[in-house]
Amino acid sequence: MNRQALAERIAAVIEREDRASRLLGMKLLEVGPGRARLSMRVSGEMVNGQKVCHGGLIFSLADSSFGYACNTHNQRALAASCSIDFLAPAQLGDELTAAAQETAHAGRTRVYDVRVTNQAGELIALFRGKSAAVKGTWVE
Amino acid sequence: MNRQALAERIAAVIEREDRASRLLGMKLLEVGPGRARLSMRVSGEMVNGQKVCHGGLIFSLADSSFGYACNTHNQRALAASCSIDFLAPAQLGDELTAAAQETAHAGRTRVYDVRVTNQAGELIALFRGKSAAVKGTWVE
Amino acid sequence: MNRQALAERIAAVIEREDRASRLLGMKLLEVGPGRARLSMRVSGEMVNGQKVCHGGLIFSLADSSFGYACNTHNQRALAASCSIDFLAPAQLGDELTAAAQETAHAGRTRVYDVRVTNQAGELIALFRGKSAAVKGTWVE
Amino acid sequence: MNRQALAERIAAVIEREDRASRLLGMKLLEVGPGRARLSMRVSGEMVNGQKVCHGGLIFSLADSSFGYACNTHNQRALAASCSIDFLAPAQLGDELTAAAQETAHAGRTRVYDVRVTNQAGELIALFRGKSAAVKGTWVE
Repeated sequence: MNRQALAERIAAVIEREDRASRLLGMKLLEVGPGRARLSMRVSGEMVNGQKVCHGGLIFSLADSSFGYACNTHNQRALAASCSIDFLAPAQLGDELTAAAQETAHAGRTRVYDVRVTNQAGELIALFRGKSAAVKGTWVE
Repeated sequence: MNRQALAERIAAVIEREDRASRLLGMKLLEVGPGRARLSMRVSGEMVNGQKVCHGGLIFSLADSSFGYACNTHNQRALAASCSIDFLAPAQLGDELTAAAQETAHAGRTRVYDVRVTNQAGELIALFRGKSAAVKGTWVE
Repeated sequence: MNRQALAERIAAVIEREDRASRLLGMKLLEVGPGRARLSMRVSGEMVNGQKVCHGGLIFSLADSSFGYACNTHNQRALAASCSIDFLAPAQLGDELTAAAQETAHAGRTRVYDVRVTNQAGELIALFRGKSAAVKGTWVE
Repeated sequence: MNRQALAERIAAVIEREDRASRLLGMKLLEVGPGRARLSMRVSGEMVNGQKVCHGGLIFSLADSSFGYACNTHNQRALAASCSIDFLAPAQLGDELTAAAQETAHAGRTRVYDVRVTNQAGELIALFRGKSAAVKGTWVE
């Protein structure tokens, strides 16, 4: 199986199990070796006390795209630490896209950068996630 | 009005508006000047492809406690950037608590540290958030 | 004056004042709008208790390249917060290069990503810096 | 040997080797299990293009205190990632102190928080470092 087909097969397994991403209405747009792109619409249930999208849900979208991307190598990996910069608020009705890309790899650690943009292409948040490889594979 | 009463009154306003925290079943346990404590139960809808609580939802709990805490001074504040370290997975059924506390204050920036623990008191995640003051107050 | 010439003129002003970068033997290789590249050789004075380059000095190289890059717009800017991931140790005698590039811009905040590599092109560290614009310009 | 005596003996070994900390004039004030306190005077050679202490050298002080603290358990540990928030500038002649304290421990990872203050007790920077245990001990 080539690396692209493997990435897609693993993503299908994750998608089936990942109820949290489903709860937030996320859609997997694209996946490949070391990368993934997901979208999420800011619904009325997602706003916070400032009447814009709750930062935790923007983080969740970025984190899911990171989770897909860092597992495409068929080595199970867990998020160890993440950071996010909020650059512009996401409004009710916005269609957000998170694009995750592998930036570095050293030993058991991989670093991923994620850009979250809205439907106008404006940058909403920058996310950096580090994963740690753990035992186990996704598919045989 | 003293600072404790003010913190409680602002928290009541935020609670009414914050639909995202309600969607995730968060409960405000306690609030005071520069601090807040919230809880959240890990439901079946909150698990990810690894069958543990989605990291974004743990982040959301921490972020909400940070949001309450950094607005207790009656100066509207927004999250500018946040980082999180995941130290142990949160399991289905876990009752998580996030305790936010102000660590530093310089100009328009405030730094908050949040500890997320489970019902056994085990540390699940460490979160650090920086807020930026913006125009406006919560109550007159 | 075009933007490239402006970036170079500002860099010359910073270089004259920046005694700390000189103490560590840093050299400015290249500067342009929103970017800068510096080098530093790991001398015997730069090793730590583990006999590899002190992480603070790797950070300093990245921070200097960030400092040059974020001031190229002729708006004085200060580092507000930075993070670094150490991916491989830098050895005595290594020739390190830090390349800073602007990643995002929102209001008074700019985000820069810096890659620190050694003479073999291996990635030593990934750095992310956020700057805040302050009053004043570098040149008239 | 009790834990305090062990921490002191390891610190003496590190101090002998750590030429970088010596180059910057750092002094070890105190060490104990999971903690360390160091000082550094901002000399004329440490200023940057903005005529305040170079951020990388403030980071270096914090990083050294973290390095001492995370090695007190006689399990060799390396810095994996660090973040710093600069809250106030450090001026020429300032006497800075960095106090590192262990905040969390999970598997091979430990998290340390460091506060950097000046001679007036003002908070200059907040640092968070994560270490990874590696093979080897400091003393038998």
